[in-house]
Amino acid sequence: MQKTFYNNLKQECKNKESRLCVGLDIDYKLLPESFNKTLEGAFDFLKMVIDSTSDLCVAYKPNIAFYESMGVSGWNSLQKTLNYIPDNIFIIADAKRGDIGNSSKYYAEAIFNHLNFDSITVSPYMGFDSIYPFTSYKDKGVFILALTSNPGSENFQKKLIKSEALYKHVINLSNRLNEYDNVGIVVGATNVEYLDEINKISKSLPWLMPGVGTQGGDLKKSIIIGEENFLSLVNVSRGILRAGDGSINAIRKKTEIYTKEIRKIL
Amino acid sequence: MQKTFYNNLKQECKNKESRLCVGLDIDYKLLPESFNKTLEGAFDFLKMVIDSTSDLCVAYKPNIAFYESMGVSGWNSLQKTLNYIPDNIFIIADAKRGDIGNSSKYYAEAIFNHLNFDSITVSPYMGFDSIYPFTSYKDKGVFILALTSNPGSENFQKKLIKSEALYKHVINLSNRLNEYDNVGIVVGATNVEYLDEINKISKSLPWLMPGVGTQGGDLKKSIIIGEENFLSLVNVSRGILRAGDGSINAIRKKTEIYTKEIRKIL
Repeated sequence: MQKTFYNNLKQECKNKESRLCVGLDIDYKLLPESFNKTLEGAFDFLKMVIDSTSDLCVAYKPNIAFYESMGVSGWNSLQKTLNYIPDNIFIIADAKRGDIGNSSKYYAEAIFNHLNFDSITVSPYMGFDSIYPFTSYKDKGVFILALTSNPGSENFQKKLIKSEALYKHVINLSNRLNEYDNVGIVVGATNVEYLDEINKISKSLPWLMPGVGTQGGDLKKSIIIGEENFLSLVNVSRGILRAGDGSINAIRKKTEIYTKEIRKIL
Repeated sequence: MQKTFYNNLKQECKNKESRLCVGLDIDYKLLPESFNKTLEGAFDFLKMVIDSTSDLCVAYKPNIAFYESMGVSGWNSLQKTLNYIPDNIFIIADAKRGDIGNSSKYYAEAIFNHLNFDSITVSPYMGFDSIYPFTSYKDKGVFILALTSNPGSENFQKKLIKSEALYKHVINLSNRLNEYDNVGIVVGATNVEYLDEINKISKSLPWLMPGVGTQGGDLKKSIIIGEENFLSLVNVSRGILRAGDGSINAIRKKTEIYTKEIRKIL
């Protein structure tokens, strides 16, 4: 079998019987009581999260915003966290980047070469030449924002252009950019009533589905419909990181609950 | 006069009789011959650029991609460069950020508090709650991507939604978010035939206009039409940084030519 981003991801999902992606959105000011409210404390907390979830999830998704807000020490902490993640687990940079081609090229360099992420999320507003510098890394994955999980997804994404919503045009472009089997789309799990429509046009694109957990997305439908298409990665961030009292037991228990649900659905 | 982002910017434009923004897009591998091809060399080069342009421009616009691609040392270099820029000059983070509200809040923290930029560019795809965490900083400026200068602006931005192009819907939202006189829009100077249309609806929003120089945008029309509206900042990046042989003389001369043209138009 050819070694593409898709094949590797599918294989890992099969091996682990999982579709769980854990979002590593960390603010050291909001750590559980037993951790120092410092970047060191945040790293200790994330080590614990990784230790207690890595056998059950197929991907981690650090949101770059949280690290960027802490400046140089945040970037160092991100690098340490990335180094700690076991090799077989996909790491998605939730970065939502997108710029003119000449600048996107440098973002791709930062995320794929410098930080060695396996995958990134990108914003499509600026069109094909803002995305191509990312998808041209054949062995890296690119998840393009299609229909996001937040309230503002109403502003533009669901608006009709020639009787098709903007997000569908984005999916059509995503299909065209999928030259190397390495393009996916971000589909908010909060958009339950849109999933069937997306399924009709998204061909073999894997879905990255945030919005389960704190944002109230539908886990069951996300997986059932996403899998009909090809593959759905369900992301949970705060729902796991802030489970119960934030102890290793609470986090493990919550991750097991999600895993059990996912396996039941599969 | 109330001290708002708009008033400060307008005043500085008046004081200097200028609308020039210099884009600090730096790749140390592409420095002129006389500079070391290192980050130190890049900093030396940018110091020279700032020394030879700061009396003629009202803003600098570092594109974050270039610094991010060099990791932690890139961020240190960015901070050093920002510290070197004279206080009276506006500094715009060309970052094109945008995420769900809870994450955008951290990007705003990074750019406005940690790096102390005066202003940022943001991407509107995720709608109002992805932008609001930026605009809620009353004394900071937020330039929202409306109609960009790159080829991919054809993909979505010019598509019609209820007989109005997507970029116009973005401008309408920008007007609504302009609670504190601190919102602007990015309008590519390459889109000459769209400027009159934008002028009709963009009320008092200042325009940040990239695309002059290497990308071939129209300086004269950008300023004439942008000023009818309220204010247009014309950005030149490579057109100045890679002027002639990249010497201090070549850069100064090119900046003077742009300044002369701008003053003639004003």
